[in-house]
Amino acid sequence: MNQNPIGIFDSGIGGLTVLREITRLLPGENTIYLGDTARVPYGNKSRETVERYSLEIAHFLLRHGIKMLVAACNTASAYALDRLKKELAIPVIGVIEPGAKAALRATRTRRVGVIGTEGTIRSNAYSSAIKALDPDVSTFTKACPLFVPLAEEGWTDDDVTLSVAERYLGELKGHGIDTLVLGCTHYPLLKGVLAKVMGAGVTLIDSAESTAEEVKRVLTERDMLHPGAQARAEHRFFVTDSPERFVTVGRRFFGERLDGAELARLAE
Amino acid sequence: MNQNPIGIFDSGIGGLTVLREITRLLPGENTIYLGDTARVPYGNKSRETVERYSLEIAHFLLRHGIKMLVAACNTASAYALDRLKKELAIPVIGVIEPGAKAALRATRTRRVGVIGTEGTIRSNAYSSAIKALDPDVSTFTKACPLFVPLAEEGWTDDDVTLSVAERYLGELKGHGIDTLVLGCTHYPLLKGVLAKVMGAGVTLIDSAESTAEEVKRVLTERDMLHPGAQARAEHRFFVTDSPERFVTVGRRFFGERLDGAELARLAE
Repeated sequence: MNQNPIGIFDSGIGGLTVLREITRLLPGENTIYLGDTARVPYGNKSRETVERYSLEIAHFLLRHGIKMLVAACNTASAYALDRLKKELAIPVIGVIEPGAKAALRATRTRRVGVIGTEGTIRSNAYSSAIKALDPDVSTFTKACPLFVPLAEEGWTDDDVTLSVAERYLGELKGHGIDTLVLGCTHYPLLKGVLAKVMGAGVTLIDSAESTAEEVKRVLTERDMLHPGAQARAEHRFFVTDSPERFVTVGRRFFGERLDGAELARLAE
Repeated sequence: MNQNPIGIFDSGIGGLTVLREITRLLPGENTIYLGDTARVPYGNKSRETVERYSLEIAHFLLRHGIKMLVAACNTASAYALDRLKKELAIPVIGVIEPGAKAALRATRTRRVGVIGTEGTIRSNAYSSAIKALDPDVSTFTKACPLFVPLAEEGWTDDDVTLSVAERYLGELKGHGIDTLVLGCTHYPLLKGVLAKVMGAGVTLIDSAESTAEEVKRVLTERDMLHPGAQARAEHRFFVTDSPERFVTVGRRFFGERLDGAELARLAE
């Protein structure tokens, strides 16, 4: 069982940043990644739909024998984590709570900003997670729907993206935050622009790293770490739309180890 | 049979512009509209996936007794029309050929630009349709992936949208076109900005109107027009994600007659 893979899913390619941190921290672990590219994005869809998609993916990955499930998508973590935890017998980890913990470690002013998709922001998941850990911290949130298409268009260091970021973040800057949670796995690609707009006094939190730490902590605690040498680790990739584009774009996130992806049919 | 509804589908709300023109031209016709909001957008997905989604929708609408199917989505028209025509016994109409015809009526210089989603442009469907009708017309195409999210964000008359449009259209302007096909049902929302960038000498073609004319022509030719008075016409709406957002945003496209939408489950 400990040799079984960790299952990681996202609506598309963004979750590969989380996978990368997991393999960096736990190089001996086998992994299976699923990108739901046929239905991407999740950020503008309802809780019911995102819950249904997440469950379909979880059951697909369970059929491949995963020992743990990581929802490496903020919208899925915000909307579906409770339901996944309830229905699955294996440990389930999302990106929201690790991101919230990292933000609390970083803030001095106790004023934290959160940006994400419409769904993630509407769910209020980050604010709830932060306040559950420390009720005295104030949170300020803003949905930024154009950031994902800008990142996918590759306009990561660009005047247009800078104008969009200035408009989205202007209000947050007014609240005197010193920490900004990048509540969407695409946003780290825009780090340069976001740092320029927010200024040197604001720490940007990318939950990939803290999520990987949480994965390690839970596997260690439950004595579920893979016993073998890292040379044998296998990374398998599934997508729901054509693998071609996923492999091309995905390499920017995960490098050469992404040498192919298989087509998954979720609903039978 | 003639009293049966016309079925119209799109990946989301954009196709409501086509529905509006159909009901304007044929007020006595009953209609059923399906917006595949749980899987929107189609523009960045593969031919296989868009074909599969279009067939699922067609079969759902057939179960509701439609007498004709209109693919009111450029990507679905580009990728799935042939397959739909082959598999369905009722007439099937897309938006590409009507748009191509309207462009040919408008151009004087015989140089036509086409903008659309990645999928529509990659499919080459407009260029093929235009050249099939008149091989002497030159076409120049450009995918504009950010236009849909900008229109959905409501930034329709906006400096950021203007900058994006200038970047996307700069190359097309250099080719001396006098006609620009808006090859995506969302783009008419950006008409003001697009007209400003292209200048007064360029005619913008929105295929909604010419598609409605094609619907009327085919129904008349096959003696399939509804015989009744317009007061009795019924317009029914289905979506695959939560109806709430669809109704709110959809009213901008279709007005008060959009008084509710039902949830459709496509795959059983």
